Order: sequence, then structure tokens, then C-alpha cells
Amino acid sequence: MKVDGRHYRTIWEADGQVRIIDQTVLPHEFRVLTLSTMDDAAHAIRSMQLRGAPLIGAAAAYGMALAMRADPSDDGLRDAADHLMATRPTAVNLRWGLERCTAVLGPVPPAQREAAAFAEAAAICEEDVARNRDLGEVAARILSELARDRDRPVSVESPLNVLTHCNAGWLATVDHGTATAGLYRAHDEGLPLHVWVDETRPRGQGGRLTAWELGRHGVPHTVITDTSSGHLMASGRVDAVFVGTDRTAASGDVANKIGTYNVALAARDNGVPFYVAAPGPSIDFRLVSGEEIPIEERSPDEVRWVTGRTRAGQVVAVEVIPGESAALNYAFDVTPARLVTGIVTERGVADASPRGLAGLYPEEARSARSVEAAG
Amino acid sequence: MKVDGRHYRTIWEADGQVRIIDQTVLPHEFRVLTLSTMDDAAHAIRSMQLRGAPLIGAAAAYGMALAMRADPSDDGLRDAADHLMATRPTAVNLRWGLERCTAVLGPVPPAQREAAAFAEAAAICEEDVARNRDLGEVAARILSELARDRDRPVSVESPLNVLTHCNAGWLATVDHGTATAGLYRAHDEGLPLHVWVDETRPRGQGGRLTAWELGRHGVPHTVITDTSSGHLMASGRVDAVFVGTDRTAASGDVANKIGTYNVALAARDNGVPFYVAAPGPSIDFRLVSGEEIPIEERSPDEVRWVTGRTRAGQVVAVEVIPGESAALNYAFDVTPARLVTGIVTERGVADASPRGLAGLYPEEARSARSVEAAG
Repeated sequence: MKVDGRHYRTIWEADGQVRIIDQTVLPHEFRVLTLSTMDDAAHAIRSMQLRGAPLIGAAAAYGMALAMRADPSDDGLRDAADHLMATRPTAVNLRWGLERCTAVLGPVPPAQREAAAFAEAAAICEEDVARNRDLGEVAARILSELARDRDRPVSVESPLNVLTHCNAGWLATVDHGTATAGLYRAHDEGLPLHVWVDETRPRGQGGRLTAWELGRHGVPHTVITDTSSGHLMASGRVDAVFVGTDRTAASGDVANKIGTYNVALAARDNGVPFYVAAPGPSIDFRLVSGEEIPIEERSPDEVRWVTGRTRAGQVVAVEVIPGESAALNYAFDVTPARLVTGIVTERGVADASPRGLAGLYPEEARSARSVEAAG
Repeated sequence: MKVDGRHYRTIWEADGQVRIIDQTVLPHEFRVLTLSTMDDAAHAIRSMQLRGAPLIGAAAAYGMALAMRADPSDDGLRDAADHLMATRPTAVNLRWGLERCTAVLGPVPPAQREAAAFAEAAAICEEDVARNRDLGEVAARILSELARDRDRPVSVESPLNVLTHCNAGWLATVDHGTATAGLYRAHDEGLPLHVWVDETRPRGQGGRLTAWELGRHGVPHTVITDTSSGHLMASGRVDAVFVGTDRTAASGDVANKIGTYNVALAARDNGVPFYVAAPGPSIDFRLVSGEEIPIEERSPDEVRWVTGRTRAGQVVAVEVIPGESAALNYAFDVTPARLVTGIVTERGVADASPRGLAGLYPEEARSARSVEAAG
């Protein structure tokens, strides 16, 4: 999408290197980083210089490509996949990207692996962009229907109010975003839209990233604290929720940024439709239910320290709790399928149920079942 | 309660002045402020140098006393009450404290009003301390019962886990706190207890104040983001919720810090008991239901800026969202009575219902009904 009038993706090749946007310094600085080695890519994933399930998959593929430049041997291939896999345990796209690269590169002679790996990473990126574009079309249709059916007519003065949590925006993908793909499309098509952006503590990806990218694209939005979603819904000021997912089980249980479950509960209590934008690769048919999804625990320092910009313009971290108090930091929670109105994919909308998801992805569901039977 | 081994209250008289603890600089600095005029008191309430429903009531009474020192006339009395009433619209204790002072001081000759006002403010403080002590006894009994009835035995290794939101601690009252009164008492009596402290954005009163006071008293606790409560409850790691209230309606609908409703929804979805510590004066029998409770909207700057301490030890504010993004900041939400397990008062526990509350406060309920009939 656009930044200062120029089109960007979140990851791209230039001069034989890989470039990314450093998401740890947004919204205060727009900084492009160069990844020259697999370790650079692993560091970028681990430190969340880039994040978001689809983008992690693409970055892992480019990490494999950089690894093949250094050591295209069979050992090098295996070590690279193991090393990159350890960076973020919950992200199913990481596994998906690495398995795909390994499968493609295994039969290729070492001398040709670097070129093949870069080609495969580029293909993963193009597919992600196309997939999100298709998902956005499905989501925009839902938004139009919600606008058409709303009691109070939708207008510029009284826009359709959509709440989102965390950043499932274009910054979380190669382009377009997942939860935002429909928002950008509907906005571009002229639907009067306003987005409530959950701050999304501890890392503030909503307040920092989603607000930034919506602002740059010109979508009206308001940042709220994570504590506000219930009150806004009870006040009738939210027409729908759209969130992303890091990993959705075959049951329709949705792992997403911590706090998504709380938003879903508020939506249910107030009759607000709750949609999950889940591109195919984020659905893990090998997981029967959400209980099998491992929940990453991250450093308590993310709760303890908040990064922002001082009045003098300096970006610094400040400690916001007593030094002697403990803190706990789970990165994700699981929203049970019963709270999900629909799973929005590039192939259409599905009920959050085994039957609903398998209906859209019959091959993937079948192949997962046969793996299970074999195991 | 104790700070560095010395017993403090949150407000006290010394050398004919009023002293308070500046809660805007905690937990990084422990600073005592002197209030010399009614304007000092109004500023302290408005800027949240002191906050918490019971403490606001006591501070308003001391504000009246300082006003009577400057102008004890009938006009002075009326102006002071009007001026102080405008500082925080939602706090029912503010109105309660001011009406009580006005009723007491009205018949007193102006020359004696200063002394009478200081005496009344001191009486309000003593009553608050006694009330919270009694409430704490009721709450500690509930905690013991929860510990006794828990499937897994409660021990130091596996303590009773109580989640709280915002600061309904001793810093929110004159002493003891409301939601914390039972926690301190149970802890002092030897019950193995661990408190999950919601950070409570935007102002972070949980992470800053509740964590600080629990730590100083030696109560084990862990700070979590507001987004974590659902996941912790779904994981079986929360045995009960105890929160305070700024204003509870006759119906049992509870106005409290924004985000309380989200916590209550998570508790309900996971079968976790949700208790509200509501001292008598916080129950407003003139309000039939929560819909009548006005919800204060505060400056969006509280969402935009986060205050904390840099590694160099400087307390500064940092901006955490894009400068061009709007923000919205409601201070409270309303938790409907249907989500409340019990209202804990100094007189015992009541169902969150008109009958339950009127059972504990028959006179207050009757007098509110007769006012309504007369109006």
C-alpha cells in the first residue's frame, strides 16, 4: 500500500539483498532494513522487526534463500529450516513457508538452490498478495451488506464502524493485509467507513501500526484502549469486528493476538458480528481444536516497558510498572469457534466449524485427516 | 497501609494543612503534596493526584474545609460545593461528601464553619477507614471459602489467584482499599494468595498503583495487560475477580473503570466468580439502573501519551500512537448486574439486584424511592 505517495510492500528484493520495513520503530520512524544473511532474517522475525503470520512466512522463505547463498548443501538446508523454525513457535505460516521451501529445494542440486530459493520466496510473496486481494473482495462484500442492512443509514456523518484488534493490516502481510484487506477495498470503493483501532497492549501493534497504515491510506479511524471495546459495543457504536489470525484450527477455534477473545466476548454479548480474516495457509487442519495450539509466552519486559516518542522527538522506552513487580506476557489467546460469526478467506466465508472450513478447503482437510490416520 | 515501614493514610491533616500522596508520580516517586486552598483540592481531584471514589469524597470534604477558611459565608459555602462538584462528574462519593458537608455546615454560624468543616472531613475519613475494615472482613471470609472449596488445594506453591482491575486499593480510599481490603486481610491472616493485576490502560492505575501498594505490603502479584484476563481465565489460572466501583445503581449495575465489563464477560464465560467491593456510599439508590450513570469522557491525550521512567531514571511521557490519529477515552463502563456474582459491602454480601441491595440498605433504598415519588 502507499506510504507518502509511493507504493511499498513489506518485503522485497533489491540489488540481490532483501529489504524490509522496520516495524519496531513505526509510527515514529519509517526505516528500511537490509537482510543480508539468514541470521538477519531470523533476528528480524524473532525481534518482530517484521511480524504478522503471512509476512513471517514470506520472511522465512527469504531467510532460506539467504541461507542457500551461504551454504546450499543438504546440511545447510536442514540447519536453516531448523534455525528459522525456532524463531516464533505459534506462527503456522512459519512452518508452512519452511516446509514448502524445503520440499522445493530438496530435489534441486546445491549449485542451483540459491536461485531456486529466491524464486520460491518471490512466488510466496506474489501468492500472498493475490490471496489477500481475493480475501479483501469477500470481506468488502460483507461490509457492504452490513452497511445496507443497518438500521441507521450509513453516511459520511454516520459511517459503518468496524473494530479491529492488533495489526492484521498490510504491514502483517506482503500487501493489502487480511483483516484490513476488505476495509481498504470498501473504503476505496466509497463506502463510508470508520475503524476503531484497539491499542493492543503490550506491543501496541494496533495503536502503532494499524493506526499508522490506515492514516497513510486515508481511512478514518480512532485509537481506543483495549479496555474500551466492551463499552463501545454496549453503546451501539460498533457495527462489526474484523480481526486476523495467526493460526486457526480445523474446528474454527482462532488463535490471534492476546485480547482477541475478550473482544469476541464483548461482540457476542452485544450482538455484534465477529469476523476472522483467515487466508488459507493460516488454517491448520492438523489441529482438531484450539486446545492444541501452543501459546507463545514472551518476555515480561514487553509489559514492563513502553516505547514511544518524547515531546523532544526522541524514541525511548519507559518503565510503567514498579521495578520489583513481576509481569506475565502471553502473546496469543484462543477465541472459541462458538464466538465467531464467520471465517473470511480468499475462497469465501465459512462457518467457524469443521464442516464449514473443510467445505472451502476439502483437499487440505482430507490430507490432514490422512496424516492423522497414518500417525 | 505501610510504605517503607511507616503507616500512611492517603489524606491527613498536619500543621493546619491537608497532605496527600501524589498518585500521578507513583510508582516511580513517593511524593507528599500540601493542599492549602480549595483550588488546590479541586486541582488534586481533577488532575487525579488523588483518585478513587472514597478518597475523592474525603478530599472534597477537606476542600470544603479549606474553602471555609477563606470564605465561611453562605455564598462561600454554596460556591465551594458547586466548584468541587464540577471536578469529576461520575463519582457519586463526590456528591455524597459535598452534600453531607453542606447539610452539616449550613446551620453552623460562619465563624465556626472552618472548625466544623475540618471536624466533618476527619469524621468522613474515620468512617471510611472503619467501613473498609468491615468490608475487608466480609471479603476475606469469601476468599477463605473459595480457598476451602477449590479443587486443587491452596498452598504457597499453588495460591488462590485473584484478579483485580484498576486500583480499588488503599490508595483509592483513606486506608485499606475496597477490592483490596479483603486481599490484605486474607494475606495477613496467612491465606496463600496471588493477585493478577490488570495494567488498566489508559492511566495504568493497576500496573502503577495496585502493583506498587501490593508490593509494599508484601502480597505476591503479577502485572498483566488488560488483554490477558480472558486467556488466564480460560487456562484456569484465576479463582476469583474482585473489583471496586465508582457508582453502583439500585439494580446492581456497576460503573467502574473502563474495561471492568470486559473482565466480567471473561469471568462469566469461564465460571469465575466476579465480586464487586462496594462500600455503602458508592451505591446510588437514586439510579434505577446502570443506563442512568453518566460516563465521563476524558482527554484523548491519556491514550496518546504514556508516562514512565526511562533507563536513566527520568519520568517522562512518550507518545505511543501516530500524531495524526484520533483517540477516544471513556473513563468508565457499566457492568450489568447479571454478570456480578455478589456485591461485597461493609454490611455483608448482596446479590446484584434491587432486592439484594435494598436488603442491606433498607433506609437508603426507601429514602431514594420517596425522593423519586416526590419528584
